[in-house]
Amino acid sequence: MTASRDDVYGNHISNQFNDELLALKTRFLKMGGLVEAQVDSAVKALIEANDALAEEIRSEDKRVDRMEMDIDEEAMLIIARRQPTARDLRLVVSVIRMVADLERVGDEAKKIARFAIRLSEEGRSAQGYGEVRHISAHVTDMLHDSLDAFARLDSGLALQVMKADKRVDEEYQAAARTLLTFMMEDARNISRCLSVMWVLRALERVGDHACNIAENVIFMVKGEDVRHTSVEEAERVVGR
Amino acid sequence: MTASRDDVYGNHISNQFNDELLALKTRFLKMGGLVEAQVDSAVKALIEANDALAEEIRSEDKRVDRMEMDIDEEAMLIIARRQPTARDLRLVVSVIRMVADLERVGDEAKKIARFAIRLSEEGRSAQGYGEVRHISAHVTDMLHDSLDAFARLDSGLALQVMKADKRVDEEYQAAARTLLTFMMEDARNISRCLSVMWVLRALERVGDHACNIAENVIFMVKGEDVRHTSVEEAERVVGR
Repeated sequence: MTASRDDVYGNHISNQFNDELLALKTRFLKMGGLVEAQVDSAVKALIEANDALAEEIRSEDKRVDRMEMDIDEEAMLIIARRQPTARDLRLVVSVIRMVADLERVGDEAKKIARFAIRLSEEGRSAQGYGEVRHISAHVTDMLHDSLDAFARLDSGLALQVMKADKRVDEEYQAAARTLLTFMMEDARNISRCLSVMWVLRALERVGDHACNIAENVIFMVKGEDVRHTSVEEAERVVGR
Repeated sequence: MTASRDDVYGNHISNQFNDELLALKTRFLKMGGLVEAQVDSAVKALIEANDALAEEIRSEDKRVDRMEMDIDEEAMLIIARRQPTARDLRLVVSVIRMVADLERVGDEAKKIARFAIRLSEEGRSAQGYGEVRHISAHVTDMLHDSLDAFARLDSGLALQVMKADKRVDEEYQAAARTLLTFMMEDARNISRCLSVMWVLRALERVGDHACNIAENVIFMVKGEDVRHTSVEEAERVVGR
């Protein structure tokens, strides 16, 4: 169908189509950059007990929501107008799926910011902050790499993100056990440690979303759905 | 484009197309029914400390994953082959988005099942189970109604689901506070109450996903994106 349209209209439509796909990609990456910065800032606000920064993140979430809706609308317009197939269709559908992941990353950042404010109100104590710092460094790397993998359509890098997710899950479990110990030691730690635990949970979810984005990148490039498959199977698909 | 194809090929393609859309809808609802049953069973396994049932849910999750991948593939084939526009396109894209929500509901059910096993190992105690029962009744209703709203393309019912989500969020906050009190009262409650808290959190997430499905139903029917809008704005869109 697309081929015959190209025969009729020549390359003009085709070039416009490519421009539209590129614009969609660019908008998605811009949104990705924004939520990446939000996660960074939320962790910073927490560690430094910076309420003003935390409030900023909470108010910026509206911008992320708006971007999600705009990108979705753009993607649907492309499908309706350009009727993409094969690799182009995989790109557009993947963007629709991944934009939901980015929006949820933004939500997790907002949640961390909320706990940052609560924790700073409860007074300074760095219990569990080492764990937060550690895991946040890993998941922000994962998020960055997943967006980079999308920008360069690099399925090898996407595979690395999938592998990193397993490690983050283990680190999260270990950190949760540490916090449980703090809570058992002294009941006065409970409320505070619970907040830190929700933050760790939010970070772990950011890692999951980065992993989802990585799986979509592999789908775009290789045409195979590697969700719910083992890392070994994903390795076979990526071909390394 | 679609209109001219219909002129050329007559109603034959159009009927096939409708059959495909109907089949997609049916598959989605079947998956919906399965995850609904999983949430029900997971809560039952928890309340009754039924490990065998909990194990069953964990192993059934693979079936849900498979359904997600199959429905996504079918939806993409429809886009590539039928090049839907307007309402049909909204339906197909919404299915792609909603199937991710259903898969996550399945994940939450699996998580509840895991905690059910952990809690039954730690010995019987019904602390917080009243809250679990209460919130699970509400979110399973929401999930059921959201799927029903999709089956009947009933935007009014979808709006009710959106409203119910606000109430569940409040109930969840109250339940979390109750559990925090139990934990502070006696350190021996901490580990157990934490598990119950994760279960409540999983249920609250099920409510969020039901709400996402409801928002997609309104989008399908009304053509307007009501995500991130107030309930009042959604009311205006639905027209009541």
